[in-house]
Amino acid sequence: MLKRDYETQPFCGVARTLEVVGERWTLLIVRDAFLGKRRFEEFQESLGIARNVLTDRLNRLVDEGVFERVRYSERPERYEYRLTPRGRDLLVALTALRQWGEKHAGGRPRTLRRRGDRRPVVAALVLEGTPALGLADVTLR
Amino acid sequence: MLKRDYETQPFCGVARTLEVVGERWTLLIVRDAFLGKRRFEEFQESLGIARNVLTDRLNRLVDEGVFERVRYSERPERYEYRLTPRGRDLLVALTALRQWGEKHAGGRPRTLRRRGDRRPVVAALVLEGTPALGLADVTLR
Repeated sequence: MLKRDYETQPFCGVARTLEVVGERWTLLIVRDAFLGKRRFEEFQESLGIARNVLTDRLNRLVDEGVFERVRYSERPERYEYRLTPRGRDLLVALTALRQWGEKHAGGRPRTLRRRGDRRPVVAALVLEGTPALGLADVTLR
Repeated sequence: MLKRDYETQPFCGVARTLEVVGERWTLLIVRDAFLGKRRFEEFQESLGIARNVLTDRLNRLVDEGVFERVRYSERPERYEYRLTPRGRDLLVALTALRQWGEKHAGGRPRTLRRRGDRRPVVAALVLEGTPALGLADVTLR
């Protein structure tokens, strides 16, 4: 059974999310997946973290259904990590965190754009039912 | 000088944000501030965490300009913590994290609503320039 990191906060959606992606480095791994990285060595090169930490985080993300582990080579046996639909749903939160860091903490601005017309896309609070964009509608570079 | 938690990620807005609010408990403290809590004892009662951890997180949030520390009593000398404009800007990210936890990880649904007509409000990706709501436009309970 998974450890509950925020046991005192049993019904809070924020706490539940942080139990899945709140560990050190985890959200940066997910960010890299959105930027197209899939393989252990790609994550390792991008993040520069200890291999055992990366292994632990990737396993946890697979256990939690954020990534799926897919074999891409039989000999040698090699796997890559792909965002599941559940993982892809983290794009709004990741975009909102990125925007805050760019506005308030010195992150270099990167713009999410709509495919086709390349108009800038942002995370924002809107009335439910407002036409919204998903991962398939945007480009991340 | 503040420790840089994600030194290998110098320009990434996500990493910059996590340096400010990515420590254990920090985002739950900010969540509580959005729900109206301001005093040490209120945070402590809500979160059930060790007082030294709470002190450390509050000091860090003040240092980072997310909270301001305001004296509300002279004798005894007592302070409370209020979200700054920079802190209030975290609402989009917190809402997005909460929504993910409610959809995918068993958080109890809470609805953000527009003041006045009480229509539900969500965090979403939209074209820049789409009419968006801010903290003053919504109710959090």
